[in-house]
Amino acid sequence: MKRSEFIKASTVAGLGMTFFKPNLVFGRDDRKVRLGFIGVGGRGTSHLRRVLKRDDVVVTNICDIDKEALNRARDLVVQAGGKKPRGFSRNEVHYRDMVEREDMDGIIISTPWKWHVPMTVDTMNAGKYAGLEVPAAVTLDECWQLVRTYEATKVPCMILENVCYRRDVMAALNMVRQGLFGELVHAHCGYQHDLRGIKFNPGAEFGPDKGEGEAKWRTQHSIDRNGDIYPTHGVGPVATMMEVNRGNRFVHLTSTATKSRGLHNYIVEKGGVGHPNAGIKFTLGDIVTTVIKTARGETMVVSHDTNLPRPYSLMFRIQGTHGLWLKDNDSIYIEGRSPEEHEWESFAAYQEEFDHPLWRRYGEQAEGAGHGGMDFFVTHAFIESVKRKVSPPLDVYDAAAWSAISPLSEQSIAEGSTPMQFPDFTQGKWENRKPVFALDDDF
Amino acid sequence: MKRSEFIKASTVAGLGMTFFKPNLVFGRDDRKVRLGFIGVGGRGTSHLRRVLKRDDVVVTNICDIDKEALNRARDLVVQAGGKKPRGFSRNEVHYRDMVEREDMDGIIISTPWKWHVPMTVDTMNAGKYAGLEVPAAVTLDECWQLVRTYEATKVPCMILENVCYRRDVMAALNMVRQGLFGELVHAHCGYQHDLRGIKFNPGAEFGPDKGEGEAKWRTQHSIDRNGDIYPTHGVGPVATMMEVNRGNRFVHLTSTATKSRGLHNYIVEKGGVGHPNAGIKFTLGDIVTTVIKTARGETMVVSHDTNLPRPYSLMFRIQGTHGLWLKDNDSIYIEGRSPEEHEWESFAAYQEEFDHPLWRRYGEQAEGAGHGGMDFFVTHAFIESVKRKVSPPLDVYDAAAWSAISPLSEQSIAEGSTPMQFPDFTQGKWENRKPVFALDDDF
Repeated sequence: MKRSEFIKASTVAGLGMTFFKPNLVFGRDDRKVRLGFIGVGGRGTSHLRRVLKRDDVVVTNICDIDKEALNRARDLVVQAGGKKPRGFSRNEVHYRDMVEREDMDGIIISTPWKWHVPMTVDTMNAGKYAGLEVPAAVTLDECWQLVRTYEATKVPCMILENVCYRRDVMAALNMVRQGLFGELVHAHCGYQHDLRGIKFNPGAEFGPDKGEGEAKWRTQHSIDRNGDIYPTHGVGPVATMMEVNRGNRFVHLTSTATKSRGLHNYIVEKGGVGHPNAGIKFTLGDIVTTVIKTARGETMVVSHDTNLPRPYSLMFRIQGTHGLWLKDNDSIYIEGRSPEEHEWESFAAYQEEFDHPLWRRYGEQAEGAGHGGMDFFVTHAFIESVKRKVSPPLDVYDAAAWSAISPLSEQSIAEGSTPMQFPDFTQGKWENRKPVFALDDDF
Repeated sequence: MKRSEFIKASTVAGLGMTFFKPNLVFGRDDRKVRLGFIGVGGRGTSHLRRVLKRDDVVVTNICDIDKEALNRARDLVVQAGGKKPRGFSRNEVHYRDMVEREDMDGIIISTPWKWHVPMTVDTMNAGKYAGLEVPAAVTLDECWQLVRTYEATKVPCMILENVCYRRDVMAALNMVRQGLFGELVHAHCGYQHDLRGIKFNPGAEFGPDKGEGEAKWRTQHSIDRNGDIYPTHGVGPVATMMEVNRGNRFVHLTSTATKSRGLHNYIVEKGGVGHPNAGIKFTLGDIVTTVIKTARGETMVVSHDTNLPRPYSLMFRIQGTHGLWLKDNDSIYIEGRSPEEHEWESFAAYQEEFDHPLWRRYGEQAEGAGHGGMDFFVTHAFIESVKRKVSPPLDVYDAAAWSAISPLSEQSIAEGSTPMQFPDFTQGKWENRKPVFALDDDF
């Protein structure tokens, strides 16, 4: 089914497809999307640069409390041939003035995690599409705030989970949909990325005063929290394959954390035992393992592993009744198709054969867009959703369900790995909602 | 520390090293070990063949209720130049007559799982070393029976976990002990082996009447139980690295099972939907994921995956504060040693450099001994322990702790992944017991 047909069908059937309320004001030229940005640090600037390459976007407003970052971003717009966007940087809530302006259709939010929900809620309340970075929310209450604001306003928000668009992940999704794996049964995924060099600046420093970049604020989460505090890069892609919130849902999870060694060791290694940060107690276990059970009876093993030296890996394994893909050895086994019984074969030929239509169409354009090209697609999907005034392919229920893993995982660990039940953010709608993510080569 | 020194030291310190009670009778020639066998199906016969290659073993008695298997085994002994052993096959408890005989020092038990504990208990009570196949026990009560019988008799039993002796696993153990991984933090392991062709004979048959080999009895466990019913091949090796029961212990676990599809699908595929077995409800989830927490704060992810098509893999990953080994891509990363930061390197050179002393000494002899040579070592360790009248390197507490995973995992799943606490089978002795497994090139 083509997306356009799908939208018609679901609207007729009342399946919860969402459009702007009729009283919301859009740009005069519906081929142009007028965007604002809140947060133009590393990630926000990356979004901005991609957007500036498109001829269907006008950047009208930018907000950042860091004036230097703000001005650099505004200059980027001018350098790209645009009119200098209005700037907002007076204080931490100056963004509220920005979201109320009428010269925007959507706003991309790339700020420290604690600001994601307040900014998104204000954006939706002001009638603008919100594109928010991951994780969407930090607490369960915040997850509900997103959902309730959406349900009250019908203004969409999209969680900008770029890994859903990774080329191999989309090929695997394509294979899932074509039934190559049979019925899905199990998956592994995670965020296994040595972030010590990001959590600390040279000299083992961090925090609002001495830190730079994400070390300003991200490191504090490792002091305050023990759980999978960054689940969506792994979970998002698997959730689209397992049709979570669209015929399926997360039911419960357990989480178990290791001891915490990596961050302390790193400080001592870089700054010696006498370093002022050497006495800090990090709450975050070096590796947090979460096991999720879905309503359809699949399980997912999710790893959060950011404090130790290791090669980067999102640990993808997608397994069904006919076989499995294992990313870590770039291999696949499909019974009856793989030439040798019970022997791996290379994933390369499958990547070729099952390359997703989106990548076939936009692959060349995507190259160099960031993170191996996948960033192109997440930006593209957000802008096309705004432009066409349709529900984005990753929506508020995805944002809530995926992000809820963090607080549930923290609670599970605090209670000795006790299973935690997921709230049903869709309130039963998951049973009849249909998959919409990347159904064709459109967006 | 050499094993001989260690034994002296621990005896003096009263660390629980165990010897036969003085009133037990041993063979006149202490260079010869007199063995009996209970169970000479596939696995028992494999043990027998290895033993018959040694000149320090005399096989005196064999028991199997399958007369054909029994006679084949007795003939093997004669073919190897030995005296025909006495045979026991009258009924299921005829083994009790055998264990009481005085012409044995040890007995190797390779029977269906439900017989492991009764036979081992009777063997220990009769004053003979017991070498028992995996899993050692099926229920928690059985785990305790093993421990209590040992503590009452001081007659050792050894769990014959061959994977503890796999060449790459022992190299990894060597690396752990030399500190290459830093402080251990996390591990993955499991039993990922498509057993459909073992659980069913051609024609999708199984059970005491129509089944052959393990299909006679093993398949029923997939009907009756939902849990990690075969944990020790993965867990044993990791437990030796993490020094479980020897300075460390398993504290709790959670288990989560997927839906059950593989076995039913296989019956339908082989026999059609009308096959009499197509109506059977299999309780065992296709994939069971267990997460174990240890007293030292490590975690272990254990997978049981035996009902679906897949390449064989025990999923080993050993991770510490300096790096990790990942078996599935035959790679390793050690910070400060691996040439490229955050890039895998091949495990091959490490296998060479850290090959375990036992493999260096016996590798040539081990080749062809079964399962890539590792079977040689487990047999060797059992026989040497009996011969020298010392505690075996894998003992009754290992047997109990590793096997307890199954019933605890079943209970966790039955209660929605609720965490289950491990009994402390050592009753506190784990804190002071020292590692003994494979300390040198002796056994």
